[in-house]
Amino acid sequence: MYEVEVKVSADHDVVRDSLESVGATHVESVEQEDIYYDAPDRDFAQTDEALRIREERSATNRCDDEAGTTDTRLTYKGPLIDSDSKTRQEAETAVVDPEQLRDILNGLGYDPAATVRKERERYTVDGITVTLDTVEGLGEFVEGELETEDDIDSARDRVLTILTDLGLDTDDQIRTSYLGLLLADE
Amino acid sequence: MYEVEVKVSADHDVVRDSLESVGATHVESVEQEDIYYDAPDRDFAQTDEALRIREERSATNRCDDEAGTTDTRLTYKGPLIDSDSKTRQEAETAVVDPEQLRDILNGLGYDPAATVRKERERYTVDGITVTLDTVEGLGEFVEGELETEDDIDSARDRVLTILTDLGLDTDDQIRTSYLGLLLADE
Repeated sequence: MYEVEVKVSADHDVVRDSLESVGATHVESVEQEDIYYDAPDRDFAQTDEALRIREERSATNRCDDEAGTTDTRLTYKGPLIDSDSKTRQEAETAVVDPEQLRDILNGLGYDPAATVRKERERYTVDGITVTLDTVEGLGEFVEGELETEDDIDSARDRVLTILTDLGLDTDDQIRTSYLGLLLADE
Repeated sequence: MYEVEVKVSADHDVVRDSLESVGATHVESVEQEDIYYDAPDRDFAQTDEALRIREERSATNRCDDEAGTTDTRLTYKGPLIDSDSKTRQEAETAVVDPEQLRDILNGLGYDPAATVRKERERYTVDGITVTLDTVEGLGEFVEGELETEDDIDSARDRVLTILTDLGLDTDDQIRTSYLGLLLADE
């Protein structure tokens, strides 16, 4: 399974109008706070790895969740296994007690290195997920995303078409993560 | 809060009869599998720390749990802060996906070092928890346990009294953890 993702910088007010006209459905709105950690034994920036605690608070009702519930996940991202397909090992689990998890990482010698806070509005249209991200310290972005078993080119075309239909200029794609953009800003 | 704990080696069949006669109540029976990890950056045996994944499967109904459910917890134990009271920092959280958690630790460079498997039958009598442990590779043990705000001596006396009432010889206390006993056996 591959995930094709295209991200551009864009004014949300303009995009919201277009979303309605292309028949997109609002899925959910969430707030995410990501804490990225430094390791005690190696430099994750050099090894191209990441360790993250994500706390996500739902701002709207989801199917089986009340509004305002918080979900905590611990994620490890390994280095690129294949640079062409941008495949990397990723392991993630939900965790019940975020405070204890921070204490565990602290005890093991991991230090909080950077925090990324954002609001995400998720929409779906023609099977593609369109996300309106407002990132603290960085501004407004729109992401188009589609999973595919094998046909990356076709999936990419579909994502680009939707973003163009929404009036976005896909020539100005942003390939850096929000964490990368924030660290570059410092 | 202090936890007073006394552990002895004992034949469970004999203890079970005594438990009935002192009016103990069976609380739960569980199976635990503990995986202890080696760190990539230091020797936990030297630093007196531990990182553990515990998977616990309930063998009997508990209040809000169906029989046979599995509970996974990640625990970090720091070095002794105060050797008199045996106080150490401990941080623990329940985790939803044990397989992903193992992958996260593996990615970070932690290696499984030892596994402790045991069956625990928990009873309560006069506020004291009495646990019958059957530890794979080590045999049968009985633990008496009581939490106290401050009066450690009195709590200790109460635990020793119950164990004596159960016909156990508290002169032969075992102060080593099951992990320590298993590693000493190797």
